[in-house]
This record gives sequence, C-alpha cells and structure tokens, in this order.
Amino acid sequence: MHFLKGNFMSSYLISPLAVPFPKLPPVSGVKLASIEAGLRYSGRLDLTLMEFTESTTVAGVFTKNKCPGAPIDWCRKILPHGKAKGLLVNAGIANVFTGQAGFNAVTYSAEAVAKTLNCPPEEIYIASTGVIGEQLPYQKIINHIPDLYKQLDPNQWEKTAQAILTTDTFAKGFSLETDIDNVTVIIQGIAKGSGMIAPDMATMLCFVTTDAKLPASVLQNLLNEKVKTTFNSITVDSDTSTSDTLLLFATGQASNPEISDFNDPRLYNFANALENVLKELALMVIKDGEGVTKLIKIEIKGAISNESAFKIGQSIGNSPLVKTAVTGEDANWGRVVMAVGKAGEPADRDRLSVAIGDIWVAKQGGVLINYDKKKVKQHMKEQTIKIKVDLNLGSGHAKIWSCNLTHGYIKINGSYLRS
Amino acid sequence: MHFLKGNFMSSYLISPLAVPFPKLPPVSGVKLASIEAGLRYSGRLDLTLMEFTESTTVAGVFTKNKCPGAPIDWCRKILPHGKAKGLLVNAGIANVFTGQAGFNAVTYSAEAVAKTLNCPPEEIYIASTGVIGEQLPYQKIINHIPDLYKQLDPNQWEKTAQAILTTDTFAKGFSLETDIDNVTVIIQGIAKGSGMIAPDMATMLCFVTTDAKLPASVLQNLLNEKVKTTFNSITVDSDTSTSDTLLLFATGQASNPEISDFNDPRLYNFANALENVLKELALMVIKDGEGVTKLIKIEIKGAISNESAFKIGQSIGNSPLVKTAVTGEDANWGRVVMAVGKAGEPADRDRLSVAIGDIWVAKQGGVLINYDKKKVKQHMKEQTIKIKVDLNLGSGHAKIWSCNLTHGYIKINGSYLRS
Repeated sequence: MHFLKGNFMSSYLISPLAVPFPKLPPVSGVKLASIEAGLRYSGRLDLTLMEFTESTTVAGVFTKNKCPGAPIDWCRKILPHGKAKGLLVNAGIANVFTGQAGFNAVTYSAEAVAKTLNCPPEEIYIASTGVIGEQLPYQKIINHIPDLYKQLDPNQWEKTAQAILTTDTFAKGFSLETDIDNVTVIIQGIAKGSGMIAPDMATMLCFVTTDAKLPASVLQNLLNEKVKTTFNSITVDSDTSTSDTLLLFATGQASNPEISDFNDPRLYNFANALENVLKELALMVIKDGEGVTKLIKIEIKGAISNESAFKIGQSIGNSPLVKTAVTGEDANWGRVVMAVGKAGEPADRDRLSVAIGDIWVAKQGGVLINYDKKKVKQHMKEQTIKIKVDLNLGSGHAKIWSCNLTHGYIKINGSYLRS
Repeated sequence: MHFLKGNFMSSYLISPLAVPFPKLPPVSGVKLASIEAGLRYSGRLDLTLMEFTESTTVAGVFTKNKCPGAPIDWCRKILPHGKAKGLLVNAGIANVFTGQAGFNAVTYSAEAVAKTLNCPPEEIYIASTGVIGEQLPYQKIINHIPDLYKQLDPNQWEKTAQAILTTDTFAKGFSLETDIDNVTVIIQGIAKGSGMIAPDMATMLCFVTTDAKLPASVLQNLLNEKVKTTFNSITVDSDTSTSDTLLLFATGQASNPEISDFNDPRLYNFANALENVLKELALMVIKDGEGVTKLIKIEIKGAISNESAFKIGQSIGNSPLVKTAVTGEDANWGRVVMAVGKAGEPADRDRLSVAIGDIWVAKQGGVLINYDKKKVKQHMKEQTIKIKVDLNLGSGHAKIWSCNLTHGYIKINGSYLRS
C-alpha cells in the first residue's frame, strides 16, 4: 500500500534488477485502454479498462488476507459465473477498509462498465491498488468510462502495464507462444508488485490473457496448480497485501479443440507455458521488491515433505538476518541454519548441509573447514545469490525466491511522502 | 549471532531507549566473576562464572529453534537433575553447528568447572553467545577457570551483566524484593539480547537468581507460566536464536517455609515479582533491539481466544511495513489492518477497530473521519508507540512488545565487520 507520487522516493529510480519491457503482440479478443483519471496520482496513467470478446472465460486467485479490499469481495462473488467481458483497474487507492461505501464504489463502477460493454455486471472484474482506508471517488471513475471505451485498442499492453503500477520502478510484462493439440495459442500477461509481497499471494495485481478456448473450470484448475510454484513461491517482506489479485482470461479465439479435463495430455504444453509466464512475472515482482539490489534463490531438499520444504524455504526467505547478510555480501550460513531451525519443521541439526553459490560450506551439522572461501565470497558479489539446504531427512523439496533487505526498503516504507 | 568487536558498528553508541544499570545488591548464595579471556573479542570481559551455594535449585526455558547450540543440548540434559552449583557463560562464540567438537567443548568445560567447584558436572550450566559455526577454544576457557574461581565475589553483578553482552549497547539488570509467607526474598537477574530476538524465546541469555527456598519443580512451573507474558511476548525481528537460554536459580538461603505446590497462594507475591523481573528484563532487550529508536506496544482484544490474539499481535509486531511506518512516524493504521489480516487468525474486517496512541482511528471496518489527527500525529513522535486492535469477536486478548525497523538494523546486520 503506497502513497508515492511516482517513484522519486526510491533509493534508485529503477531497480538494478529491472527487466526491459518486451514487445507484446495483440492477443486476439483483448482490447485495452488507460488514461489519467487523477484519482490520487496526477500526471500519470492510473485507470485501465480491458475488454474481452464475448466467449471469454476466467479464473482467479486472490489474497488470503482476512481483511481483503472491496474489489476482492466483488471478484470472488462473480468468479463462479466463469465469464468475463471487462476488467477495470485503478492505481492509487486500494478501496480497502472502506465499509459500505467501498462496496458501493465497486458495485456502481461494475454496473457502469457493464452498461458500456453491454453485459451483466457479473462479467466485469475490478481491481484496485494503493492506499488503504481512503474512499474511492467512483463517480470520477464512472465519468471516465466513455473515454476509456473510445480508446480501446489491442496494442496498448505497455501503456497498461505502466498504468497499474504504484511504487514499482519498472513495467512488467511477458508473453509466450505455445500450442494446444498443435494449434498455436498465446499466453500473455502484465503484473505489478513492489512491497507487501509474500505468499500467498505474492503479487498485488497480475492479469494474464490467452486466446485459447478453455472452459473456466479447466482454467481455474490450471491456475491453482501453477500459482503454487510461481507467485506463491516468492516473498519480499512477508507482508501479505489486502488486494492481491491474479486473473487469467481466455478469449477462445484460437481454434484449439474443446478440452474439458485439465489433466488432458493435450494441455501439457499449455500448462507448462502458463507456469513459465507466471514464473517470469513473479520473478519480475521480486526484482522490483522495494529497495532490492539482489535476488535470492533458495532451494530446499531432503525435507520430510514438499510442504515442509516450502515452509523452511519461506523461513529463510523471510529472515531479516539472512536478507541483510545478503545485502552485506556476507556468506553467513549460520543465519541460514538459524532460519532452518526457527521454521519449526522437522530438522536434524546434525544432518543439515548448507551450500552457498553451489559450494557446500557446511555438511552434516558442521562447517567444512576447507571449502573454497574465495569462490563463495565471489558469489556473494553477484546479483543472484543461491542458497541450498539439504536436510537429509526425506525427499521433500521446494524452491523459493526472495530478495535482500536494504536501506532502500526502510527509506521507501519509513519516510515516504503522502501526496 | 554477531561478529562485532564492541559496539562501534551500531548507528548509535547507546540505544536512545537505554535504561541505566540499577544498583544490584548481593543475592545470598550467589558469587560472580568475569574476566577477559580473549576468546574472540579482545579488550573486554567475555567469560563469566557464577557459583551457587549447595542447596541451589534450578529451572530453565530454552530456544525452540530446531538447530540449537551444544550448550542448549547440555543444559536440557542436566535440567531434570534440578540442582545447580555453577554457571559458565562466554560471549563471542555461540558453539552452534559445531558437531562433536562442540559437544566435547561443553562437556570438558563443565567437567573442569565441576572439579573446581567440587560437584558433579550435572550441576554446571553452560551458555554461549556469538558467532555460529566456529569452534569454541575450550582449552583457553579451562585455563581461565582457576582465575575466575579466585575472583568470585557477591558484588560483581554489573561487571557480569557487561561480560555477557555481544552487540547490546547497554548492560541489563533488574532486582525486586518480595515475600513468601511474609519472609522477604529477592529476585534479581541480568540479560543480554539485541538481534535475532523473537518468541520463543525472546532473549539470547537471561539469568535470574533468588535466595528463596523452592524445589526445582515449583521453580520450573512458575518460570513456564511467567515466560509467556514476558520473554515470549517480545519480538525484534522475528528471528529465533539457536542459543536462547533463560535460567532461574534459587539458592534457598532465605528462611521461607517449604512450599511444594506452585499454586500455593503463599507464592502469589513471589510469582508476581518474578513476572515483573522477567518483564523488565524483556523490555530492556527490546529497548536494545538492533537499530531500535522506538518501542511498539501492541494490545489485542476481542479475538476468539488468547492464543489467537497472541498470533495477531505477533503478526503486527513482526510486520516490516508496520515497523518502518513507526520509524517514519506515520500513523499508518492501514498496515495494521493488513497485518491483522495476514495473521490467518479469525478476523472480520467489518468488525475491526484500530487505535493509535489510545485514539480510535478506525472502527468496525471503516476509518473514523473525525478522529483527532493532530493528537495521533503527536503520539507518533513519542518513544513508545501504542497500537490497539479490537477484533470484536470474543474475549481473547494479548500484549506484545516490539520495536521499529530502521537503517541502524540494516547497518548492523548488513555491513558488520568480521573480527
């Protein structure tokens, strides 16, 4: 939740781990438009409309935070309907903790968009990101809908990726071609993240589209499966936003055969491509974590189960002492041992091994006296720091991506300006 | 776990929340000595011996970290014995993740002290704090035991409180007189903390003594009860040390009557005084959290149970976004709502109320438009920030103490020097 005007309060203008925005082609059945509505920010795009063709199905995953925003309530309510005609997104005000007025803001906005797009309100998705507790000036939003509608265009991906940002320092997009039963389809999405990023969910907003023809139930099953290894395996600061939203829209414009079982082998390529798109976007969110200068890749093996491995990975990824050690370029494997131990999961100190940058520094409960300290020191200077833990107890494994904790995080979150 | 020589890497020399060391009287049956053993630090006290009179009983609580240090293993093993003659403490090397050599170091040290104090090794407690993974030069320690023994004296409390510190910026001690059945007894302790402080346990080392005459089982029950609302209700950075140790020694030199039931009403005053001593020492640990400039007092009520309230309090106390907001003196109650929601405990957004500095800023799921913003802003400038949450669901309540997250924490933990 951010109150920044633009990004000038960051310790850098653009994250050192920033990824250039790729050239994104149109996705058949998707049109986009973004404008400056002046909802909270001024002088930047802050309101977005996406229109989907009539056959579009939808799946979604939302924050597990028990105090979600009004838009989350709305999306959860309409999701069983399974069809989508439009998506309205605003940046600057999250519409969280806004009571009945917040509910009204969402309902009236959805009704207005539905009228313009000529569909029931249950086909209009709403997402908001920004400050908590402030009322959304929905009349202002509604007044802009005709303008947005006029500007709808299939080639507005980069502009839209920019319009949904808050404290992010770069726009995030990714696209892959794949196939369903040898029919080429595209999967393409945009995301925003920054602070308050932790499983589950790990991004504030992510919208993925495909031209594939797939029923909502198949989409939802695929999304549930693939979110685990992607957005739910990243963490910036262990804080979980009240607005996290991941939506997947399938316009059905491709001529792939009807598939009603998400386990159908003809969906393997699609499922893998979806995982890759989600993973790339999730990694971009980490790479734009507030104040980030290094990515941390944590690999756990030998745990008693995958779930246990995941929890141990999270404990390492969220440990302030591990994160600051990475900032200090200090191969402090002792803090890794501490973080393994504090996870509360089964671990036997005397079987535990730790590697940094693929070099084992401790094995079976003791430091390796002769490990290549120079090489490990060199690794700590890199932008991606690899930490591997082997518990030597079972076959449970997990991968977690995190980022370091720096002065930039404190600066952004501890001394920001209210606009 | 720290590698500092002295405290010069802190962002300040002494915490702005530091408490002056009180005048501590002797505790009948307790002698202390500290010397410069040069184990890792140089030019400062780093090795401590405490001798207890023969009748001394003991209770202990240790870290729940699954990768504890060798001294923790040792103390856990001898605790059922219930009697204590000595305590040996070193600062600088934690003797954690040191395998068989670490076990040997503890055993040989305990045996050497036992020989000097003329008791079985099972009556010698060992505690270590400092760097993980490094071998403890136990021969050096053993060589210093005769010197320590010669210097044993009942009036060395302040020196001892200094000798057990690592990155702490001030020595921590507290003393209270109370009574058992109208017989005056004393409870007096010292502690060290700093980073890697979270429930459970919340301090690295804390040693409390009393001249009361109480069986070990009574002591242990009292300690288990009173640790909940004191050391287990504080958090600095959510990280749990591998060395946390809280020991309570009762020398039995007072002439209080024998009491064998810890629920005996004659123990009420003693139990309350014990809680107060533990709470004061725990608060000193928070007040010396790495980089701390503000104390955060979190009060939860209306949760479905005390346990649930405790978890919600911890979620707020550990949230980097709440902690940095406090640093920025920003009354960001939206982040408090987020932290309540992410705790995963039952919470109804539309019943939730939040107060800052005793002023309700949000009630029943919405901001109070007319709350006294000036007064709240004023409160945020104070050294102790009060956050109150009412879930309006039940009667569960809890109090948690935390501290803010500052550049100092990053500086101390992200750029420290190895000695």
